[in-house]
Amino acid sequence: EIVAGIAAFFAERQGPKPLTGRRAVVTSGPTHEPIDPVRYIANRSSGKQGHAVAAALAALGADVTLVSGPVTLADPPGVRVVRVETAAEMLAASQSALQTPDGPADIAVCAAAVADWRVAATAGDKVKKGPDGPPTLTLAENPDILATLSQPGPARPRLVVGFAAETRDVLTYAAAKLAKKGCDWIVANDVATGTGTFGGDDNQVHLLRRGAEPEAPLIETWPRLSKTEVAVRLAQAIADTL
Amino acid sequence: EIVAGIAAFFAERQGPKPLTGRRAVVTSGPTHEPIDPVRYIANRSSGKQGHAVAAALAALGADVTLVSGPVTLADPPGVRVVRVETAAEMLAASQSALQTPDGPADIAVCAAAVADWRVAATAGDKVKKGPDGPPTLTLAENPDILATLSQPGPARPRLVVGFAAETRDVLTYAAAKLAKKGCDWIVANDVATGTGTFGGDDNQVHLLRRGAEPEAPLIETWPRLSKTEVAVRLAQAIADTL
Repeated sequence: EIVAGIAAFFAERQGPKPLTGRRAVVTSGPTHEPIDPVRYIANRSSGKQGHAVAAALAALGADVTLVSGPVTLADPPGVRVVRVETAAEMLAASQSALQTPDGPADIAVCAAAVADWRVAATAGDKVKKGPDGPPTLTLAENPDILATLSQPGPARPRLVVGFAAETRDVLTYAAAKLAKKGCDWIVANDVATGTGTFGGDDNQVHLLRRGAEPEAPLIETWPRLSKTEVAVRLAQAIADTL
Repeated sequence: EIVAGIAAFFAERQGPKPLTGRRAVVTSGPTHEPIDPVRYIANRSSGKQGHAVAAALAALGADVTLVSGPVTLADPPGVRVVRVETAAEMLAASQSALQTPDGPADIAVCAAAVADWRVAATAGDKVKKGPDGPPTLTLAENPDILATLSQPGPARPRLVVGFAAETRDVLTYAAAKLAKKGCDWIVANDVATGTGTFGGDDNQVHLLRRGAEPEAPLIETWPRLSKTEVAVRLAQAIADTL
């Protein structure tokens, strides 16, 4: 219904399409990192916010590729969708979508809840319960998709937007993420248990923009809105900036 | 479409309802075991097979409670659904559903893909990436729902059916599981990569029934069938036995 909401919102909108001719890549959903053929590690994410952002950018005229982890949402209308499972696959698909013969895309929005870690040694067969008790899972660091796409150079999109999902000290962690990853904006939200953000239809976010001093971002705190409305505001802010 | 298939199949069926007056509890779907508020370990399971079994038992007249982990399927018609997240919650909900003032239920079908292990110490806040590299996950053994429900005593259902999902040596592991868990039947299937069983609509199973010798079960190998047809055959076999 999130995506239908976006479609209905923009069907009535007869105004200009300020992102016409712009190309955007949006990541959405979780990633699944296999332990063995039957088990995996995942991040909680319904994909609702990322899918809504893809739909909102498309509604403003952008040519959008959505790189989505495993979700059960319908494809947003007017958006090219590439489905992936792991963080490594998501990075490869995003890089591929960002590069075209005409140069890099204009906009990257990393809304996916990418797993920070994968299992160091994925088992080819189901790991059995044994007399020695449970196994210990050794993890390995996944590629950092947001930091990789933010790296300076001719392949960098003009505007790279990340999301930060935190359970406490939201603004502190988000400002640190903005300074560290090299992206331009961070959309920060509080996903602590009880906020209802995971899987829910609402979101309360802060938009942090890199300022003259990397340690002092410009912060806008938005009211609690539907994920559709957050997406519409974000797409409009992107259009106003490019 | 699986559940709709069952409903359509039985809407045309005008025959007797041999499980009228019988009570059944069916588990279905995966369990999710939290690492922290944003990450979890899961088993792959769409819930399609378990939900189809619940629908098929109800269609034969049984009073069915479906204890389901996180799935995106519609509730089967005519079935009471209890939603849970973890293995511990699934066991508690199943035991609660099995016991009534009139005594234990008649049938338990454990079709859920229960996580064998949970994380020993779940973090209350999101675990941050740090300079020391990825954390090591220490796991703890989850309660064994099938073995627990199979324990002899006045609370035991008359017929306890388990599922075994294996990636190799399917019959060997399934026979060992039948002997070890104390259940009456095991429905064994091959979920190796490439079989398409995970998330797919078809299944190829073997039905193992405990024989006079625990080590020598009676084995029926069924052809590749839709998950709906597997459910219908299993429900009919249960009706023929009770």
